[in-house]
Order: sequence, then C-alpha cells, then structure tokens
Amino acid sequence: MNERPAMLEQSATIYFGPWYRRSPFFEATRRAGCTAYDVYNHMLLPAYYDDPITEYWALLNDVVVWDVAVERTVEIRGKDADRLVDMLTCRDLTTCQVKQGKYMIVTAPDGGILNDPVLLHVDRDRWWMQLADSDAGLYALGAAVSSNLDVEIDYPDAYPMQVQGAKAARVLERLVGPAIYDLKYYWCDRFEIGDIPVLISRTGWTAVQGFEIDLLDPDRGDDLWDAVFAAGEGLGIRATAPIEARRIEAGIMNYNSDMTHEDTPLHIMGLERLVEDQPQDYIGKAALEDLKARGVDRKLVGIQWAGEELPAELSWFWPVIRDGEPIGKVTDAVWSPRLERNIGYAWVPIELAAPGNRLDVESEHGPLAVTTAAIPFIDPRKEVPAAPLKAD
Amino acid sequence: MNERPAMLEQSATIYFGPWYRRSPFFEATRRAGCTAYDVYNHMLLPAYYDDPITEYWALLNDVVVWDVAVERTVEIRGKDADRLVDMLTCRDLTTCQVKQGKYMIVTAPDGGILNDPVLLHVDRDRWWMQLADSDAGLYALGAAVSSNLDVEIDYPDAYPMQVQGAKAARVLERLVGPAIYDLKYYWCDRFEIGDIPVLISRTGWTAVQGFEIDLLDPDRGDDLWDAVFAAGEGLGIRATAPIEARRIEAGIMNYNSDMTHEDTPLHIMGLERLVEDQPQDYIGKAALEDLKARGVDRKLVGIQWAGEELPAELSWFWPVIRDGEPIGKVTDAVWSPRLERNIGYAWVPIELAAPGNRLDVESEHGPLAVTTAAIPFIDPRKEVPAAPLKAD
Repeated sequence: MNERPAMLEQSATIYFGPWYRRSPFFEATRRAGCTAYDVYNHMLLPAYYDDPITEYWALLNDVVVWDVAVERTVEIRGKDADRLVDMLTCRDLTTCQVKQGKYMIVTAPDGGILNDPVLLHVDRDRWWMQLADSDAGLYALGAAVSSNLDVEIDYPDAYPMQVQGAKAARVLERLVGPAIYDLKYYWCDRFEIGDIPVLISRTGWTAVQGFEIDLLDPDRGDDLWDAVFAAGEGLGIRATAPIEARRIEAGIMNYNSDMTHEDTPLHIMGLERLVEDQPQDYIGKAALEDLKARGVDRKLVGIQWAGEELPAELSWFWPVIRDGEPIGKVTDAVWSPRLERNIGYAWVPIELAAPGNRLDVESEHGPLAVTTAAIPFIDPRKEVPAAPLKAD
Repeated sequence: MNERPAMLEQSATIYFGPWYRRSPFFEATRRAGCTAYDVYNHMLLPAYYDDPITEYWALLNDVVVWDVAVERTVEIRGKDADRLVDMLTCRDLTTCQVKQGKYMIVTAPDGGILNDPVLLHVDRDRWWMQLADSDAGLYALGAAVSSNLDVEIDYPDAYPMQVQGAKAARVLERLVGPAIYDLKYYWCDRFEIGDIPVLISRTGWTAVQGFEIDLLDPDRGDDLWDAVFAAGEGLGIRATAPIEARRIEAGIMNYNSDMTHEDTPLHIMGLERLVEDQPQDYIGKAALEDLKARGVDRKLVGIQWAGEELPAELSWFWPVIRDGEPIGKVTDAVWSPRLERNIGYAWVPIELAAPGNRLDVESEHGPLAVTTAAIPFIDPRKEVPAAPLKAD
C-alpha cells in the first residue's frame, strides 16, 4: 500500500520460515494487509501496513491495534521469585504490589542494560517480564542456577496485542465491560473476552491512552483479533505498525538501537531515576553507584531540526561530527506531525548533552544541523496515558 | 535474480535499521547481489543470491563464501574460564586443547538445548563461543554472577565468514600460504591476510572441505571480502546463502527450527553422543543422566520421499498425522540434488523413530507420504570434511 520509495531503497526480502517463532496473530496481520516485518525476539513483528503519518493520526484520534506477541513473556515464580526479580534490576521492587507493573531495566554486572521489559507482578510469587529484543530469559535462568534461590523460570502462553489511542478504553469497555475503567496506569488484571482468557495491562509503547491484551490461549489468536476489531467498529480502529513518531515524541527507547548492553540507565536522558536507592543488593549495584558518583561522560539526548519532512527513518546510525571527527551518533530520526519538525535521539559527549547545543550530523540524505533537546518532547510527566480513562 | 515464485509467496519486505547489528561484510553482500536477508542474533544474514540448486553445485564443485558474522562471538576468559565453559555444556571439555574446537551444546538446568555454538579454545584460559541464534552470552553472564568464578565475559571483534567447498583450501593457500594445510579439522589458528588480522578455523555448516575466517578488525570487512574473492579467481568462487540441501544431507541442525530449549541432545538423532560421561558437574547433568536412563519418548529423525522436487522450503512446521491427529512435525524439507529425492527432518514419537517407518504429512503443498531415515543422509562419519586437505 504505497510504501515510500525512500523506505524501500533500504529494504530487502525476508522469507518466512519455522526458525521464526510465530505470533498467534500472524495470519490475521497478513490478512489485514501487513507487507513488511521486522524480526524481534525470534518472531516476525509487523512493520508496514500504511503510511506512517496516516497511522500516527489514527493513534492520536482513534484507536490502533498492534501485534506485539514478540514481547516474549518470561515467568519467574516460586518462593524466592520476588528476590530473584529484584536482583535482576536497578529498580526497587519491594513496593511493587500484586497486579502492579513497572518499566524494568535488566542490569548486567557492569551496570549495562540487558533488556527493558514491562514487568508485571501477575500474582503472589509470580512475575512476568515482557521482553524487549534480547533473550533476557536466559540471563535470568543463568543467574538462578547458582543462586540457591527457589524459583522456576519458563515461557507461559501470553501473547500481547496493543490496543492504543484516544478511543482505546471505549473498545475495551465493549470487550470486558466497565471494569476496564478501574484499571490504573501500569496495573494489570485477568479478564475474559467472550470465552477467551486474557490478561490486560494498562501499558504500551505510545504513552497515550492504551492497553496490552495478553492472549493466554495461543489457539485463539484469530478469535481475539476479530473480537477486538468488532468492538472497534465505528471507532476508526485499524491495525498498524509501531508508530515511531509518537514513540520518539514520548521519549521511549528502543532496545538494540537507542541503547544496548554498552549503556547504563545513567547514560540515558530520562532513565537516570530508574537507578533507585535501595538497601538490598542487585546485580550491577556497585557499578551503577560508582558511576553515579563519578558521572557519565556521554549521554543519549533528544535532537530536533526544522526543514523538510524526513522521507524515511534512518537505516543505520548517522555520525555526529565535530572538527571532522565522529563524536557521537544519531539513533532515531523521524518527522513529528504534531511538532511539525524532525525529532530524534543522539549519543553525544556529556558537555553537549544540555538542550540547545548545535550538532553537525552526516545523515543518509546529506549534512544536517540539529539542536539538542530535552526528552520526552511531549507530555514529559506522562499525564496523558495516566489520566482517568473516563471523566467522572 | 529469478527468485522462485513459491519462495516469494511466503515472504515480505524487511527494512534495514540500526536495531539490527551490522555485519562488516553487509555492504559487500549487497554489492554481490544479495536480495533477501534473515535476522539471526540481531543481525542480517544473507538469504538469497541465486537459485539454491545453482549454489549447491557451486559448493560441491567449486567454492562459496558466506557472510556468517551473525555467529556472534562470546569470549569467556580468566583463571576460571575453563571451569565455567565446561559447566555450560554436556560435553567434556577437559581434553580440549588450546587451538582445538568443539561442536558445543549449551545446556539448561533441565537439560534443554540453549544454543549449539562452535566453541574455540583460542588461547589458554580463553574460549570463544560462536553462537547459533540465541543470546547464550547472557546465559553465561548470568551463570557467572553468583558462581564465584574468576571470569570475564564479553563480545570481541571476531566476525566469521565461511569459505567452503571443494576448492576452499586452494583459496586459503593463496591467502595465507601452505600453512593452511597444517590446520586439522575443528582446530583454529591466527593468521594475517595481507595486513588484516584473522583467526581461521576448519569448521563450517556444510560438512565438506571448508573454513571460517574470523575478521578481527571490523573496519576491514570490504578488504577481507575483496582479498578472498581475488584469491578465488579462476576457481569459480561465489557468494551464496546458507546451502540448506547440503546442510540437511549432512545431518546438521538449525537452532530454533529443528531444536529448541524444549529439546535435549538425547532427543536428536546423531547428537546423543554429545552427552558425555564425565566426573565433573555441569548444568543440566542430573536431568540428562536421568533422561538417559529413562529414555526419550520422541525423537528428531530423518525423513525422505521420492517424487517431484520441492519448489520451496517449508515456511512453517508441517504436521505429521496419525489417525487424523498430529503426532509430530516436519522441521525441514528440501530437494537433495545428489540423492535425487526430497529429504528433511521430523519430530516423531519414539516408536516411529527407526528408519523405514511411513509417515503421513500435511505439507503446504498437500498431503505427503514420507519415510523415516537415518541421518546424516550422506557421509555419516564426516570423512569428507576431516579428510587431508591435500594428497601427500
């Protein structure tokens, strides 16, 4: 459907094969017109249905559905599950209630970021990490081996689909009734949609009103998909790819491109607060406390520039240049329809990290002059996604 | 270049982006005409240059080059590196000499297969796992955390390229001199190609004569590529995708499709011997010894059938059916030009695992009757790849 030539230039064919895990919604995404896929956690992730600008406005004005079954669910359960999960992250989970969730940073011994899942405390002594694109379940498994902790780790059938946008709650109300209005931001609960068992969390990758519906029976993918679209009738519901412009406006990071094991949360504008002071030990604590005391020498920050709308996202990192030498790299670049300028993120030396510094960038489309900026670009306090779902 | 319609039917577009790690040979593969890529260890893997049958004969008669930088290298080093690596696998590594390699199975606590890298003992107290498609480096990192072992784990710059085929040794001789003839099967050594530092191992995914050249300086990808092709002049050298027909003839397994964490080496025909008796402990030992005593209830075995050449590999597992019920699944299916029949692998109940049993399969192309077979289909003792490189 009218893929942009600038996007297709940096593309190739991908063959489907049994070496990719298959989403329960895969056939539905094909029928819905998905023409491009990424691979994420060994599974195909829809990457193109329609023009990104069209999909952006559908999210902001109506409601969109994404197959994100790629967010592989790792369950850690057992008597010592609370302790193991808390050891794996720089966040303090001791106050995380049952049915509450957290944005989690999985930390390496050196403080590096190994994954940034949504963590759901689904039951007493039972946690779900819904992973970004790395096999952090293997890290948990390894860490458990010689820990003497009484835990079990496996991969339950739980396949998320995001329902996000201005009218998301109305869709969910039609699916599970007004109980949806009791679900607080970043909390979760179990429901049935018809006779399909699901867990619903008020989370997502858009930082607008939205939900993730976890399908708990992998054979019911088509049924859930059809039920959601039936509930969205008249509300402009449509299937979309992840909406990068909104993701970047919101200061949300993409693991493997914006940040990797080489980086700690202290290096990322907006994530510093996730290194939480706590009496208990966790993996990477010594390294992170040391780094916090010393300070970081580089940072991932926002960038922005006026001018023509970018025709495509970057296909590879763009170097940031000073005096002819690379001093950093751009990791994201996209046109923001609401801000009416191009925005993105870049790694820069710490002395250039404050907003308002000018940077020279060698983009795929020629040289660019950009300016550093604070992130999130819009709604820095996440008031939009956390707002009451319904005026009382 | 003449992609088969049956292959393209089960395909889509993939956009390049910085969320995929980039092979040092990526630009060279594009120039060489690669039109399709897989994603493997978060990196693009060439999947199509020319017809698979053409590439098969180029391997058997001449020499082919694959970019397999996707085989991500994890280095484990330090005083206790020998112990940690030996703990991670059911193989007994205590006799693995410096510069020797092993086909490794990384085992989970439950005996499941987490990865099947080529393991190279590159130096004293220094090992490289060159990974199949899972982040088993995170498993090693987790296992090290609470082990009290004195090790360091990271990802060195080491990007393999396979040079495989009947004339591979002649190419290598032109690159590094006659010293290549001293390299024993599954051993490795350091060389320079011009001024490019490399490590060369006599390993590969074809079980014919072949080598993997590890590029140790990521900025020299084009230089190494060009040097290899210059050395192959007159020998019919060409870049190819992985050659599945030869891989399957040889009984080589593909992680994530043929076998996963759900399976142990005792479940895979030909891998049982890798659960080696040893006095020392390793992760999964109790589970594997118990399973060995009890016996497995299902097995991955060979299958074969005559008739028309399959037009494409499978895009998803094909069910094996008995009395209308699924009892297993086909994981691979390909035309073998030398055997002049279709071959593959299937998971079957143990009572059907012996060669010669008839199975009913629901393929993407309609019902099939296949027969179980021993694997490897050709050269079960690996005499071809282990043969002297040069007649004395």
